[in-house]
Amino acid sequence: MDAKNVTLTPLGGMGQIGMNCMVMETDDSMVLIDCGLMFPEDTLFGIDVVIPQFDYIIEHKDKLKGIILTHGHEDHIGALPWLLQHLSAPVFGSEFTLALLESKLLERDLLDNAEMHVVEGHDRIALGDFTVTFFPVCHSIVGGFGLGIESPAGRIVHTGDFKIDRYPLNGVATDLDGFRHFAEEGDISLLLSDSTNVERDGFALTEREIKNSLHDIMEDHEGRILVTLFSSHIQRMQEVFELAEKFGRKVAANGRSLVRNIELARRLGYLRFKESTYISLDDLPAYEDSEVLLLVTGSQGEPLASLSRIASGEHRQLSIHEGDLVLMSSSFIPGNILAITKVINNLYRLGAEVLYERVQAIHASGHAHVEELKIMLETIQPKFFVPVHGEYRHLVKHSRLAVECGVAPERSFVLENGDPITLLGEGGVRLEEAVQVNQILVDGKGVGDVGQTVLKERQLLGGEGMVIVTLVVDDETGEIIVGPDISSKGFVFEQQFSHLLEDAKCIVLDIFENIPPGETDRLKERIRSSLRRFFRRVIERDPVVVPLVMSV
Amino acid sequence: MDAKNVTLTPLGGMGQIGMNCMVMETDDSMVLIDCGLMFPEDTLFGIDVVIPQFDYIIEHKDKLKGIILTHGHEDHIGALPWLLQHLSAPVFGSEFTLALLESKLLERDLLDNAEMHVVEGHDRIALGDFTVTFFPVCHSIVGGFGLGIESPAGRIVHTGDFKIDRYPLNGVATDLDGFRHFAEEGDISLLLSDSTNVERDGFALTEREIKNSLHDIMEDHEGRILVTLFSSHIQRMQEVFELAEKFGRKVAANGRSLVRNIELARRLGYLRFKESTYISLDDLPAYEDSEVLLLVTGSQGEPLASLSRIASGEHRQLSIHEGDLVLMSSSFIPGNILAITKVINNLYRLGAEVLYERVQAIHASGHAHVEELKIMLETIQPKFFVPVHGEYRHLVKHSRLAVECGVAPERSFVLENGDPITLLGEGGVRLEEAVQVNQILVDGKGVGDVGQTVLKERQLLGGEGMVIVTLVVDDETGEIIVGPDISSKGFVFEQQFSHLLEDAKCIVLDIFENIPPGETDRLKERIRSSLRRFFRRVIERDPVVVPLVMSV
Repeated sequence: MDAKNVTLTPLGGMGQIGMNCMVMETDDSMVLIDCGLMFPEDTLFGIDVVIPQFDYIIEHKDKLKGIILTHGHEDHIGALPWLLQHLSAPVFGSEFTLALLESKLLERDLLDNAEMHVVEGHDRIALGDFTVTFFPVCHSIVGGFGLGIESPAGRIVHTGDFKIDRYPLNGVATDLDGFRHFAEEGDISLLLSDSTNVERDGFALTEREIKNSLHDIMEDHEGRILVTLFSSHIQRMQEVFELAEKFGRKVAANGRSLVRNIELARRLGYLRFKESTYISLDDLPAYEDSEVLLLVTGSQGEPLASLSRIASGEHRQLSIHEGDLVLMSSSFIPGNILAITKVINNLYRLGAEVLYERVQAIHASGHAHVEELKIMLETIQPKFFVPVHGEYRHLVKHSRLAVECGVAPERSFVLENGDPITLLGEGGVRLEEAVQVNQILVDGKGVGDVGQTVLKERQLLGGEGMVIVTLVVDDETGEIIVGPDISSKGFVFEQQFSHLLEDAKCIVLDIFENIPPGETDRLKERIRSSLRRFFRRVIERDPVVVPLVMSV
Repeated sequence: MDAKNVTLTPLGGMGQIGMNCMVMETDDSMVLIDCGLMFPEDTLFGIDVVIPQFDYIIEHKDKLKGIILTHGHEDHIGALPWLLQHLSAPVFGSEFTLALLESKLLERDLLDNAEMHVVEGHDRIALGDFTVTFFPVCHSIVGGFGLGIESPAGRIVHTGDFKIDRYPLNGVATDLDGFRHFAEEGDISLLLSDSTNVERDGFALTEREIKNSLHDIMEDHEGRILVTLFSSHIQRMQEVFELAEKFGRKVAANGRSLVRNIELARRLGYLRFKESTYISLDDLPAYEDSEVLLLVTGSQGEPLASLSRIASGEHRQLSIHEGDLVLMSSSFIPGNILAITKVINNLYRLGAEVLYERVQAIHASGHAHVEELKIMLETIQPKFFVPVHGEYRHLVKHSRLAVECGVAPERSFVLENGDPITLLGEGGVRLEEAVQVNQILVDGKGVGDVGQTVLKERQLLGGEGMVIVTLVVDDETGEIIVGPDISSKGFVFEQQFSHLLEDAKCIVLDIFENIPPGETDRLKERIRSSLRRFFRRVIERDPVVVPLVMSV
């Protein structure tokens, strides 16, 4: 590799919303941009989280100059505890981002492996061959940055997750001027930009509009108000606190992540409210319903979160009062819609009124819509373009949008995870051979051992249950001493289907008599295949059959 | 029960979209309105379909005068094969509805249990104490009816699933005039109306608008066109065939249900096209891409359907060509969104362009939006109102809408499944004590045996896998002869965790030595609890532990 070349390799975040992780390197410097996790599409096979494959980083860890975190969402920082088991590195991010990371690392006793460097907006930091300037961006979390990178092969802009809120509350705006100056100081070779909302026209709603909606709703309401939102959406919380103060309501919070983030954001100065506004759940009885606002976790219908337990009547301290108004100030992530609507319906059953994005403008996405993406493209005017942070169709559409905005079609790329792109020192780019980047499944303390085999077994077990056949055979006589016994789990309601299991025993006996003693493997295979055929035919189910044959 | 009283008992369809089934009865007459199934929210636990509990119908089958099918969707006719295993009855519906039912019953050899009566729009049929008039309604399937019911306790209107398409193509409109006359001939005691889209403002898009969108898209396209839609949406198919003929394209269909319904609808005269327009897949090679339109199944991302197999490159006969345009002319059912977006992304990977409801107006719901619901309420002007066909929040909102439209608040009800309401002969209503109506899970040939216990086992097995411990013990000496052996399924990748399973064996041996011989149950319980604790601590997984102890 020529010292002037710069290669970017996405290890995650391409073709998916989640697990953002990008390696940027020269011959002797490597910088990692974000290191996120993804939640599994299906929570039913016991997978906790999905993380990128880190082999490539670990192999080259000697030249790792630093890890840059654009912001503190799980899909940008959540996989770091697994990477930091293998290496130590300086980590750069805003105070809020690093505070979130810190509590993660503390839990796993990994704090020593991260040398934390708090950066402020417009800080310019040298990391080996790269110099990175941090531009504040507006997103659904405070302390987010886009990056202006000076590299040996030219200037690179990475937007991070952003939207352009032109009339921002509390001054948290995307620093378009900063990006513009950075682009004017030298042509931008490459822009990497957030593709999440490329299918949405116009501009995203602004926090000002959301606050106005919330204002009008709260103004008219007499009863208690419950608000659920993403626990890291500090800006939205600020709006809620301000409105609570305006309408003379005390705020009580419930849910671990929410309570922790309120305290954290307050300590760091991101969240401001009067001491007397924030009360504990225990103080609630002292107030009328009209004086209370509850902030609760559970915006995604997570079964153990506060709102879900309230909705199912299983919360120890909180229950719905007639006249309660629940505001779901959050988006519905597609995989969670059934769980969320179950919560909403249960809240209605208990007599609450529920408002959510679909029926009222009480949530705004944190990602740029089409017109905002165009503004970014036109501000940066990059030579090459690589859309990031999106499913495949988002990347395709964003790549086309870049062409509409002036990028030459042959210079607008769609990359998948593991596809490296090299910016050549002499100009131009080269697409490199793909690097292997599996998605690593984490289940408990096992990282990567749950692969296709184990998953497939879980799928079969979960779908059809299991039948265990046990036989103890006398080695000398070749006779059965115990069994065949048949037990099942998750297969049928045994009381109702006892005849079925009796018939299965007869089949096993029949097989046993027709296979010469000692051929245990053949016996087991025949038991497995015959019983599966039998169950399929008789009851149209196909359980996992486990034959256990023991010789004594 | 007074002979003049009429009781309606919903067995399904309240508080859920699916499984519509309503009993209507007097002392000596019973009529069933619809008998639908529901697809399980989660396909992963092996449940095929969910059906209503029929005990109440079966207990009173002697007075069952007939089963009325409002239209042929699965959530209105799909559970009939299970009911007709227990009884015979006359069944009334449109020719298309009954044709769909017929093929279901034929498959299960149940045709003899249904005495089919084809009804036409405005037919008026006496069924015991009830006289039912069938009013054509516009819905996403042809041959749909709303019902005008003359009962001993007054007139009842049941809308069925409907929308009001005021400028309908091919004359398939909701017969508002018919409903109005029926209401003018005598006051309506009770209206039961479709609540599905009560959260959607304004009017549903019309088929005329959809056809215009499809027209403009097809007019501009050079390459091949693939269209996927609900296989029973004959009206939409008619539009597609007409446009294909207009633009000189041949139509080939792929997917069992689609091919069957095209033939059926054509035979019955619901679908009209030139003989030469419809070709087989085998004829495709004779045509240029610009001359071809493919109708395929898979609008919900079903893994075995035509479009999903094309998208994953696993279809035997069809593959994506560069320049293909895929039109998903259907809604995305919330539980299917992840599967559908996977298909869309894969189609983009193969170079196709994909349009769908979110990005282009190529699908219209078959259910009335708010303004249409108001028109129905104002046309009927019922004394009492019961919203049907909706999740709980839909029912609440529809009930409020009725009040806005003039129904007295105390006369607008929200019922759940199993809540009977009696129209009293002397006027007024009475809410009766609830009837037990479980949802019955069907898995293969087992109906109802998979209950909470089996489901819970499947969930545990699917989430964490299973560990089997086997021990053969000599009854006389109390010594272990074989084992402890440990085998697992879906738990860990055994090669990687062999030490874990070895340690587990030691734990079992230790327990064995500390429990007196003969106390097998205690031994098993200790093995189960100790191993679970061990696995939770060491690997943070909680498999189903099955201890098998055999004495010889």
